[in-house]
Amino acid sequence: MILVLRTDATSEQIEHILERVEELGFEPRPIRGEFRTIVALIGDDNTPHAELLEVLPGVEQVHRILKAFKLASREFHKPDTIVSVGMTKVGGGNLAMIAGPCAVESMEGLDAIAKRVKAAGANILRGGAFKPRTSPYSFQGLGEKGLQILREVGDRYRLPVVTEVMDTRQVELVARYADMFQIGARNMQNFDLLKEVGQARKPVLLKRGMSSTVKDLLMSAEYILAEGNDQVVLCERGVRSFEDSTRNMLDISAIPNVKGQSHLPIIVDPSHATGRPDLIPAVALAGVAAGADGVHIEVHDCPEKALSDGPQALLPDLYDQVMKDIRKLAETFGKRL
Amino acid sequence: MILVLRTDATSEQIEHILERVEELGFEPRPIRGEFRTIVALIGDDNTPHAELLEVLPGVEQVHRILKAFKLASREFHKPDTIVSVGMTKVGGGNLAMIAGPCAVESMEGLDAIAKRVKAAGANILRGGAFKPRTSPYSFQGLGEKGLQILREVGDRYRLPVVTEVMDTRQVELVARYADMFQIGARNMQNFDLLKEVGQARKPVLLKRGMSSTVKDLLMSAEYILAEGNDQVVLCERGVRSFEDSTRNMLDISAIPNVKGQSHLPIIVDPSHATGRPDLIPAVALAGVAAGADGVHIEVHDCPEKALSDGPQALLPDLYDQVMKDIRKLAETFGKRL
Amino acid sequence: MILVLRTDATSEQIEHILERVEELGFEPRPIRGEFRTIVALIGDDNTPHAELLEVLPGVEQVHRILKAFKLASREFHKPDTIVSVGMTKVGGGNLAMIAGPCAVESMEGLDAIAKRVKAAGANILRGGAFKPRTSPYSFQGLGEKGLQILREVGDRYRLPVVTEVMDTRQVELVARYADMFQIGARNMQNFDLLKEVGQARKPVLLKRGMSSTVKDLLMSAEYILAEGNDQVVLCERGVRSFEDSTRNMLDISAIPNVKGQSHLPIIVDPSHATGRPDLIPAVALAGVAAGADGVHIEVHDCPEKALSDGPQALLPDLYDQVMKDIRKLAETFGKRL
Amino acid sequence: MILVLRTDATSEQIEHILERVEELGFEPRPIRGEFRTIVALIGDDNTPHAELLEVLPGVEQVHRILKAFKLASREFHKPDTIVSVGMTKVGGGNLAMIAGPCAVESMEGLDAIAKRVKAAGANILRGGAFKPRTSPYSFQGLGEKGLQILREVGDRYRLPVVTEVMDTRQVELVARYADMFQIGARNMQNFDLLKEVGQARKPVLLKRGMSSTVKDLLMSAEYILAEGNDQVVLCERGVRSFEDSTRNMLDISAIPNVKGQSHLPIIVDPSHATGRPDLIPAVALAGVAAGADGVHIEVHDCPEKALSDGPQALLPDLYDQVMKDIRKLAETFGKRL
Repeated sequence: MILVLRTDATSEQIEHILERVEELGFEPRPIRGEFRTIVALIGDDNTPHAELLEVLPGVEQVHRILKAFKLASREFHKPDTIVSVGMTKVGGGNLAMIAGPCAVESMEGLDAIAKRVKAAGANILRGGAFKPRTSPYSFQGLGEKGLQILREVGDRYRLPVVTEVMDTRQVELVARYADMFQIGARNMQNFDLLKEVGQARKPVLLKRGMSSTVKDLLMSAEYILAEGNDQVVLCERGVRSFEDSTRNMLDISAIPNVKGQSHLPIIVDPSHATGRPDLIPAVALAGVAAGADGVHIEVHDCPEKALSDGPQALLPDLYDQVMKDIRKLAETFGKRL
Repeated sequence: MILVLRTDATSEQIEHILERVEELGFEPRPIRGEFRTIVALIGDDNTPHAELLEVLPGVEQVHRILKAFKLASREFHKPDTIVSVGMTKVGGGNLAMIAGPCAVESMEGLDAIAKRVKAAGANILRGGAFKPRTSPYSFQGLGEKGLQILREVGDRYRLPVVTEVMDTRQVELVARYADMFQIGARNMQNFDLLKEVGQARKPVLLKRGMSSTVKDLLMSAEYILAEGNDQVVLCERGVRSFEDSTRNMLDISAIPNVKGQSHLPIIVDPSHATGRPDLIPAVALAGVAAGADGVHIEVHDCPEKALSDGPQALLPDLYDQVMKDIRKLAETFGKRL
Repeated sequence: MILVLRTDATSEQIEHILERVEELGFEPRPIRGEFRTIVALIGDDNTPHAELLEVLPGVEQVHRILKAFKLASREFHKPDTIVSVGMTKVGGGNLAMIAGPCAVESMEGLDAIAKRVKAAGANILRGGAFKPRTSPYSFQGLGEKGLQILREVGDRYRLPVVTEVMDTRQVELVARYADMFQIGARNMQNFDLLKEVGQARKPVLLKRGMSSTVKDLLMSAEYILAEGNDQVVLCERGVRSFEDSTRNMLDISAIPNVKGQSHLPIIVDPSHATGRPDLIPAVALAGVAAGADGVHIEVHDCPEKALSDGPQALLPDLYDQVMKDIRKLAETFGKRL
Repeated sequence: MILVLRTDATSEQIEHILERVEELGFEPRPIRGEFRTIVALIGDDNTPHAELLEVLPGVEQVHRILKAFKLASREFHKPDTIVSVGMTKVGGGNLAMIAGPCAVESMEGLDAIAKRVKAAGANILRGGAFKPRTSPYSFQGLGEKGLQILREVGDRYRLPVVTEVMDTRQVELVARYADMFQIGARNMQNFDLLKEVGQARKPVLLKRGMSSTVKDLLMSAEYILAEGNDQVVLCERGVRSFEDSTRNMLDISAIPNVKGQSHLPIIVDPSHATGRPDLIPAVALAGVAAGADGVHIEVHDCPEKALSDGPQALLPDLYDQVMKDIRKLAETFGKRL
């Protein structure tokens, strides 16, 4: 950590700064420059309360040098983490192909979709039982009934299943049915929920919040890892921007950015990123080309009757086509589907 | 609702569109224009699943005409809602002056700060017992112990108290101690939590999410109102932007924007919006001048030893000064503090 | 165009609205709905001043139905436009591989870089002679000297050359030396400059502004096309966002988004999008996988001595590697390099 | 400037780093920390090419300590700069009230508006003769004819006049008629234009770009000051954001933020920030309360017939009302109108 002092810092102020620095456990090394005095602090930037040095009279800037996350960092754990979701492996060259409807609506409905995505090559089935909807008047999901359907259909097609958990009180219930928890974008910083799934010892699909930086995402993963659960798959699903012709903006550089800093797998979700079926195929391919460990796509066989997010669902025929292209791409770059 | 059809929509497609429109309960009125055919739908835009019309083959655009929220809208409830927090009134010309430390740290610490903010004119005391921290390694709050201290100090200085609730499982506990729940920005779309405080029948301070639009904010308020609790105070606390010299960007136009559309009071939080004590006073005054129903400021008598967010806390002397200016402004525009 | 009237619109107001609508040349079709009256306007949304209907008393909303650009639209011109830059073709399956240093610094310097990028497979050479620098104290480019060097080196390696033009007064000079104008992100809405290059009848590389929507970009292209120049190549180079670990955020969905709406080619620029050599390769591949018609990469053989933007330049060896991967990708999807 | 080295930096790399540092004119002071080695550089951060140290092998981070602008900084020039526009003073407690139509349309039209805004208390008249329009098919301004009208009407009502200059070739012409140049948001980084008005020795109203940081704005001002022209008034007019109910988002904290760092006056433009007459009054008052040195408002007596930006124009009666409130506010805080 480095403190830059104000040009008008008094010697009393400087003395007080050095005292506080030592109280926090750092060894201060002041350097008098041509225009400013700086103080380099020997010690750990993640020392509790180190950020408080910023408020000391006489301090103008504080520069942090170390990363704020540890367990999620590649420095801490060099090799790629491979997460096992049922028999599907994610990471280290293994691509997760997650597909299914936004919400579980009925046994027949999910069966029809699962059959198609399985045939196309999906290796994890998704479907929401608890739905975070912007409006209280929208369909909120089937709850436990939805979980039962998801489990049964997943077993029928030998697909492990992932579903969203929105509330700490649902964790136990969801764990009973699902192979993987999904933490949605709106809950990426619901820290109690992160702790709870961290203790549940099942893989977690952690989606990036709509206004979260890559660092924020890794800090949220750190919450789960800190509880002892290292089976975390990150998901880039687009962030809010001024562009109004798509639902969100996928941060494609987040893929290599995360992979450079962290050992955790990261997949892309072109469905939520774009909200537009006409753009999903190109963005899915872009994700894989950028090095993503998988693709999450919402598929529905009758979007016009979907109970949630129909407008962004891909038809099964189009999913077949995307999967063919993804397969070609995977082969080109030596990845396994 | 209005559908704009594609130029190449076939007559079969159009027939199917009209059928589905009627199934959903709308009366369709097609109009053949010079370049496009549109279909005006007589009926309620908030009809469940109406958004699905967007996916019908032959449909190019869907334009929504009615607002998506109702109970929170000024059309539904014309006069300003006045929320009572203990003996403090908020809205309708009554300004809430909420002040206190970011986190409750100790009885003595809170007492010293409460004494100062009360003297300066604050009428609601704040202090966090459960803290949503980006890092799992940061101070997470004193929990129930913090709530007890907050209650006791609030009573001592005759200040009603507000504190954050982060998890549905904490609602009952927090309700036992606090006069008002705070829903933080990160939980603005934690819908289970919104429902829970909606049922708790205590006033709620609902902070705008960092990437939420004004409409999203009002939809989240709608969740609380739909449970029967209309004691909601909104809070503009800044959104994420590319500007990197402040913590967030306060959307000052959200104040008149909300007041035009909704009857609910709205206050500003310059502390989280800027993250910089040197900018807080100007932004607080701007909020009041724009018509805000109050100001939320974090105050600490020793920011360099604060356990949370010290760098953005205002010193009590500066808070005195801001309050003097706010008082002048309130008088100029006939508001009550 | 559709007008939505206020619930409290008076009959005088409605009469006045209908009059103005007819004055502007539209035929109004009022439709009385359950909650609102709407007026459908038969005619061209791009009628001058049509946007003014928004301010008429009694009007609550105006919905535009037609696109605001025409010459740039795919409706107007169905097949992909292929732009010829010297002997290099861009679009319709032909990929532009634009590479070179940020700024032309010297004959020897440019020669060394051109030799390497040519060998790696680049087919257009770039290099700035006029540099838009945030600081007036930074290197501003060699001016005409730089143009001469660029031309000479381009001829030597049989590479057509592209260079930025920043000011209307430079257009004639730049046209004398370059095969293609570049309009930088900061000048995307410098409308006088757009008109000037529109008249110059040389291909134009038009970069998306940092806060421009896809529609804004196409409107700026329309300025050039409206002057009679249809040799326009668009460039997605990232927009401003809250993410602070990269220079900008590349909007990957802009590639299929533009290609759906417009016949113009569009390429990606991962150098400016990320500002980080470690992220450039992945983002370049993502662009090609998403359907981009080319890739623009800044290459420097000694970034630590570059006079401009050294930190984001790729070393020639790394450029070789990226080109190999791009070639594999191009073959997989049947594109020509 | 401070370099943070990689944990795996070799001794050859470190040696090379120290050499380059010295070549650039810095004196390096390496400090070996617990987790990282840093090198503090004694010297001027604004040394040309200092940013290049970032690319040296072995360097992980570069932290800049000094501001990148100088002439615009308050450190360089302590007292508030007061800019004289004709007889109107801006800054140091003097408020500029700039008002008028978006575009000059006709002598009668401008006369009618000027009469009203003068009566309401405006002290500078605005009106565009060259208009930057998103669409090439929109009204582009009257050109020199518009300048003549503006000058004549300004003289008639004894109001100095400000008008936009978009192109370097227009500077001389505009200078002949106007008392102050306006550089629009889209041209904030049109550096040739900045240099040109910097040499013209007339006051400049420099609007913040839609995706520019406060630092970017001050760097653009620096371009003008570096040419010898210190008569610069900055203007906060909103930036792009995800909020879609307003045209832009006014960064209210930019007012105290700029005033802390710079001696230049800064005003607000609620018209372009919001694009909505119903929000303009509140945002105008907020700006003054935050310490702005003036307010820029577009006024039109018949917005439904305005040739440009009618929907955001304020009616003269509403302008009267805003001016009354601004006057009250100015008195409360001891400012002069």
